[in-house]
Amino acid sequence: MGGDFGPRITVEASLAVLKDHPDLSITLFGDQEQIAPYLPKESQPNLSVAHAPSVIASNMRVMSALREGSDSSMQLALDRLASGSACAVVSAGNTGALMALARRTLGMIPGIDRPAISAAMPTLKGDCQVVDLGANLDSSPEMLKQFAVLGRALVRVTTGRDPKVGLLNVGSEETKGNETLREASAQIAELSDINYIGFVEGADLFVGEADLIVCDGLVGNVALKSSEGVAKLLAHRLRQVFASSLYTRVVAWFARPMLNTLIKSLDAGQRNGALFLGLNGLVVKSHGAAKVNDFKAALENTLEMLKSDLPQQLAAQVARDLNCSP
Amino acid sequence: MGGDFGPRITVEASLAVLKDHPDLSITLFGDQEQIAPYLPKESQPNLSVAHAPSVIASNMRVMSALREGSDSSMQLALDRLASGSACAVVSAGNTGALMALARRTLGMIPGIDRPAISAAMPTLKGDCQVVDLGANLDSSPEMLKQFAVLGRALVRVTTGRDPKVGLLNVGSEETKGNETLREASAQIAELSDINYIGFVEGADLFVGEADLIVCDGLVGNVALKSSEGVAKLLAHRLRQVFASSLYTRVVAWFARPMLNTLIKSLDAGQRNGALFLGLNGLVVKSHGAAKVNDFKAALENTLEMLKSDLPQQLAAQVARDLNCSP
Repeated sequence: MGGDFGPRITVEASLAVLKDHPDLSITLFGDQEQIAPYLPKESQPNLSVAHAPSVIASNMRVMSALREGSDSSMQLALDRLASGSACAVVSAGNTGALMALARRTLGMIPGIDRPAISAAMPTLKGDCQVVDLGANLDSSPEMLKQFAVLGRALVRVTTGRDPKVGLLNVGSEETKGNETLREASAQIAELSDINYIGFVEGADLFVGEADLIVCDGLVGNVALKSSEGVAKLLAHRLRQVFASSLYTRVVAWFARPMLNTLIKSLDAGQRNGALFLGLNGLVVKSHGAAKVNDFKAALENTLEMLKSDLPQQLAAQVARDLNCSP
Repeated sequence: MGGDFGPRITVEASLAVLKDHPDLSITLFGDQEQIAPYLPKESQPNLSVAHAPSVIASNMRVMSALREGSDSSMQLALDRLASGSACAVVSAGNTGALMALARRTLGMIPGIDRPAISAAMPTLKGDCQVVDLGANLDSSPEMLKQFAVLGRALVRVTTGRDPKVGLLNVGSEETKGNETLREASAQIAELSDINYIGFVEGADLFVGEADLIVCDGLVGNVALKSSEGVAKLLAHRLRQVFASSLYTRVVAWFARPMLNTLIKSLDAGQRNGALFLGLNGLVVKSHGAAKVNDFKAALENTLEMLKSDLPQQLAAQVARDLNCSP
């Protein structure tokens, strides 16, 4: 039910993914009447609908969602995950509500207080994971340390490599930033075996010196979305520059394959599907503005995470890092 | 003396600007011996050197700069501005130290507590001013309101238009964000005659729905630098895509003028020179990584600000907005 375009996106994307993955089963949680028009006429063996009497609105406050959301599509989907009859929940709905309901329903990995949102950003040297992308505002030093623990475990489990970890700040000198950042930096540096490179700046998000960048949710969210914004602006300018005269239009015809490759690489949709790190279970948040192909990408990225047995592996890694039992 | 490359950049840029502006006089504050090698053999009537015994290092803490910086190049330049024998100070040095020394030396416009850094970002619909870009971390609601007052006055004075004002957050719904942002939003909405559009997201920085975006310094700094980072990444990918085969290289030869136009528009250097808003005097901060042409742009942008009598106009506008005497 979530996202800017409602069930049309989620239903069409689910059907497309089921076509490619015949072993997969998907249950759609939401208002049966609103979902029905988008379902194919012949019944799909691997696609079912679980009716939910209510929906968490995109502007609903977290407290209201916790109080009134018990029969919402979001809550019912999370209940299915908690009961063990589902492997993962994917939602394009209200981020704050999804986080709060998931935390209450699934619980946290021992040693971790709150979920953090993580996604990979492209850099000159490969991908860089960024934690947190908007789940936690006003993060304390202890929370930033936990983001480092979670992010490092994620990179280790998914790539087998030990990431270089940076903490996002206004400058790379250790005197920069506020008390929170300097205290967080000291705490992260003390984590056992951490490959910590200290403070990094916004530009470093795309340079690739760090494989994991830790930041407060407001900062990470703005960095992610402003990068997507600038990529769109540049794609727009690219089209403008090549449309300015007959000559440029002829050249553009020959350059089309290269330009399409570039414009496609600017498309954040294929990277859609951010992970809620730290939960006892796999919950993936799709961009609210996701179109069918973007939501399909979120589903496919979730399947990849399931293949590597991510939630269990992650909990085990965090337990080793923090010396507590998983 | 400031910046990553020292006096070579500032001296060469000053000489280049003086060539285009024979009415201008520039005084270089710094270590005479380090500056001398870059000066031309014949003396320049409009260029002088004021020797400073010490320098504020880029990693010096603000408290140390305030305590020990009294004979630094930065302080001596600010003293010259405070005495009225200079119209503006341009520096590529330590941002925090420059802000603190400038505040102590020049004082603030009535009604404004601390300087904020402002610069224009390109959008699909023209420029968008962003305040603050890194001078203030942990901004309170009252400070964010002052950024709105300063930014609005700047846009009014420099463009004659009344800006649409947005407050940067993780989402545009009014329930998003933390207490600080919601309280700041309420305070900004109450400013007289404000054209306030509420919360905006990172992507809106480049869409152009707002003409002025208000944010905490850490958030603004990371947004600005990550946008520059993604622009560099895309320029790199553009070159890669066109270098991949003989065919693409032939097309690239014909497409070169368009690609150069685009790559130039990605270059943040021409926008170099961020304004310290709120001071009794014109202080401009150049990017530390500025090359000669970038620092030249900072000097030229400063000249433009002087032409519109910016500091006086700004103080008068803020006084009208806050109903206090300038």
